Amino acid sequence: MVTLWVVNACSSLGIGLAGCGTVGSGVWNTLACNGALITERAGGDFHLHISKILVRDPSKSRDITGQVPDGIFTTDWRALVADPAVHIVVELIGGTGDAFEIVAAALRAGKPVVTGNKALLAERGVELFALSKETQTPIHFEAAVAGGIPIIRIVQDSFIGNRILSFYGIINGTSNYILDRMTEVSLSFEAALAEAQALGYAEAHPALDVNGWDAAHKAILLATLAYGFPIDPASIHVSGIEQVRPADIHFAKTLGYVVKLLAVIREHPDGAVELRIQPSFVAKSSILASVHGVFNAIAVQGDAAGEALFYGRGAGQNPTASAVVADLVEAARSLGQSSGHRGFLPYRESGRMLPVGETSTAYYVRFDVTDRPGVIAEIAGILADHRIGISGTHSPVNPTDPDAEFVDMVFLLHTCPFGKLQAALSKIETLDCVNSCPVVFRIESLG
Amino acid sequence: MVTLWVVNACSSLGIGLAGCGTVGSGVWNTLACNGALITERAGGDFHLHISKILVRDPSKSRDITGQVPDGIFTTDWRALVADPAVHIVVELIGGTGDAFEIVAAALRAGKPVVTGNKALLAERGVELFALSKETQTPIHFEAAVAGGIPIIRIVQDSFIGNRILSFYGIINGTSNYILDRMTEVSLSFEAALAEAQALGYAEAHPALDVNGWDAAHKAILLATLAYGFPIDPASIHVSGIEQVRPADIHFAKTLGYVVKLLAVIREHPDGAVELRIQPSFVAKSSILASVHGVFNAIAVQGDAAGEALFYGRGAGQNPTASAVVADLVEAARSLGQSSGHRGFLPYRESGRMLPVGETSTAYYVRFDVTDRPGVIAEIAGILADHRIGISGTHSPVNPTDPDAEFVDMVFLLHTCPFGKLQAALSKIETLDCVNSCPVVFRIESLG
Repeated sequence: MVTLWVVNACSSLGIGLAGCGTVGSGVWNTLACNGALITERAGGDFHLHISKILVRDPSKSRDITGQVPDGIFTTDWRALVADPAVHIVVELIGGTGDAFEIVAAALRAGKPVVTGNKALLAERGVELFALSKETQTPIHFEAAVAGGIPIIRIVQDSFIGNRILSFYGIINGTSNYILDRMTEVSLSFEAALAEAQALGYAEAHPALDVNGWDAAHKAILLATLAYGFPIDPASIHVSGIEQVRPADIHFAKTLGYVVKLLAVIREHPDGAVELRIQPSFVAKSSILASVHGVFNAIAVQGDAAGEALFYGRGAGQNPTASAVVADLVEAARSLGQSSGHRGFLPYRESGRMLPVGETSTAYYVRFDVTDRPGVIAEIAGILADHRIGISGTHSPVNPTDPDAEFVDMVFLLHTCPFGKLQAALSKIETLDCVNSCPVVFRIESLG
Repeated sequence: MVTLWVVNACSSLGIGLAGCGTVGSGVWNTLACNGALITERAGGDFHLHISKILVRDPSKSRDITGQVPDGIFTTDWRALVADPAVHIVVELIGGTGDAFEIVAAALRAGKPVVTGNKALLAERGVELFALSKETQTPIHFEAAVAGGIPIIRIVQDSFIGNRILSFYGIINGTSNYILDRMTEVSLSFEAALAEAQALGYAEAHPALDVNGWDAAHKAILLATLAYGFPIDPASIHVSGIEQVRPADIHFAKTLGYVVKLLAVIREHPDGAVELRIQPSFVAKSSILASVHGVFNAIAVQGDAAGEALFYGRGAGQNPTASAVVADLVEAARSLGQSSGHRGFLPYRESGRMLPVGETSTAYYVRFDVTDRPGVIAEIAGILADHRIGISGTHSPVNPTDPDAEFVDMVFLLHTCPFGKLQAALSKIETLDCVNSCPVVFRIESLG
């Protein structure tokens, strides 16, 4: 019997690594560790090596394995992209300035690009995806969304035969860590954030994590792939976790929920796409409620595949490097092929986003009110005027000061369009007993 | 001889569907429903249509959408494979006889193959994978393992940069359904099986489901991909759920566990691969314990990606069709490419399987004993002779007959090699107070 272990000529493919911080070092180390295994699995077709590294300061010491060849570092991105020994460009410098230039230049030079830059693709993806099509040069970005979960490829390849009905995702590990610590050990938001920073989970300037925009960038990429059209970041509703208080966590618990920052993406029967990022009450019995710490999870509903859920590490050096390396293999396989790109890119000119005002769920609303008779009646009256049903209301006694003048008052509201709620809230805000903007969380029924 | 199909602007690619039962009809319907969307996502490169269908009885009525062209049915598999209008062959007839001939003939004709036949690949994969390499014609089999979970592609592509440290999988939906119903509503094994059959989850002859071999075939495929060498089904340990009794379910609950049929695949530091299918106690707090009904889930640990878990429908018409369609797109993309195969196949001649005797866990063992003084002492004495530690023992009173002569006696044992346990059990079986073979479940710590 003929057993044919075909070994072709093994090309050595050079990688130009733009950025050698946490993830870049992880890519170096993963290739150093598992490079031979990758070549074996790829049927001996190619060997990947890093031939050029773009850094700000070549003299800085780095946590990378083994010998670094002389002259591998450069501070000039043009030199990196133009280097004939660079066949594939990996962009890991972040931001939307130089990163854009590097990616665009690589595509124009016909060099496949691998990037983990969600902000770049969410904000300037339209230009870059068009350039990728024009140059027939692929751009891969598994590392941009939930590093350790191969959700990009799942959407681009595995679910290609499905209309995607919805995504429900926990896709910002920092926010999930903070909410989890607030839930599990009753930390305040500030204490949980400080802990996340001390552990290296949150940046020194964690604005994009806690304000929801990191999750929003990822959700835009998922929705763009699933529904095929570019999505303007200005068209979506994003609210972060800065306003979550221990009182909210406590209430959620009492009612059988946990608070999660959820990215919700849904296609409505008329084709309109709902996309929003908001703190949400999620039933304790749902699998998403069991996603702890910095883990990410994405529940996907396909019309053929049914319900599926993908869970893993959303960030960190090695999980993100794992995603970059998978994309490098994909990029390597596409070199020399007539039709380079497998993962699809936006395939429609435009589509309709559902205005957030038309999205409906139940709600949890917390008001900061002056504690005097008639407060509930006044708020409930305005809600009634707007035909919004109340399923419960509660005003906890302040344990440290039972006679406090200002108290939190919580309303649980039946399902209604968010626009209707907003109209009612803007009226309620004008009441003299209401002292600040109400805080609104969604109550999601995950089915 | 390799035939390259040149793909022009939107080629219409013909599929030869061997088998038009549940999954085959699902493939037809998915393409009928989402074919245009698939073409859009594929950049308009190709359109997939079913051009030939192999059936036993062309006159049988089928649950498929829309008009079926005249002459599409054939009863001759050779005609299907040879048909010049068939560019890709889908094998869904099952078994290892004709199915083998069809797959082999298609590969020899240079026609990519998509199959969902786990038994075929687990038992005759060595020959077929070698033929795929020899003919440079891809064979895709996402549908063979956990239909709605794209685990094959995750291992072949997304985790290609990882050494895979372990899989822990619930990969037989029928067994999980039966155990779940025994746990949640206290059904007997027989009643739960009858329910699964009535609902269409279990076949009329469910032997491969309940004896563990369906899960074993899938686990062999996963391990073959992860570790790269062919695995002889005779080299692995498989035990099914036929021996699970309500008493076991009850005990597990009391101790904070649920009983699951687990496929465990692990690479040991010396490179030996552990692969076993056994009923197992899984801690209630683990995500795998929350996998209910016919759902499947696979926890994967990669050295770079870390822990990940993939959850979804393991079987059924549409989830399996979704996997077949994803593979069809992959196959279509490979037509006309010089190097067709992306997903890797076995890449090593051989490797070492860890004998089951050398695998270690804690255990739950149930004995059927004659209730007389000294029974525990005799059993415990033999365990002590074998240096096996006991963490607990219990003999439940039979509520319907407190003076019953025969009773169940349960021992919880500390971690030891399975071989040591087997040696002790074969001694214990010779005791005259022990009436039948002991029943052994693993107690898995999922970390």
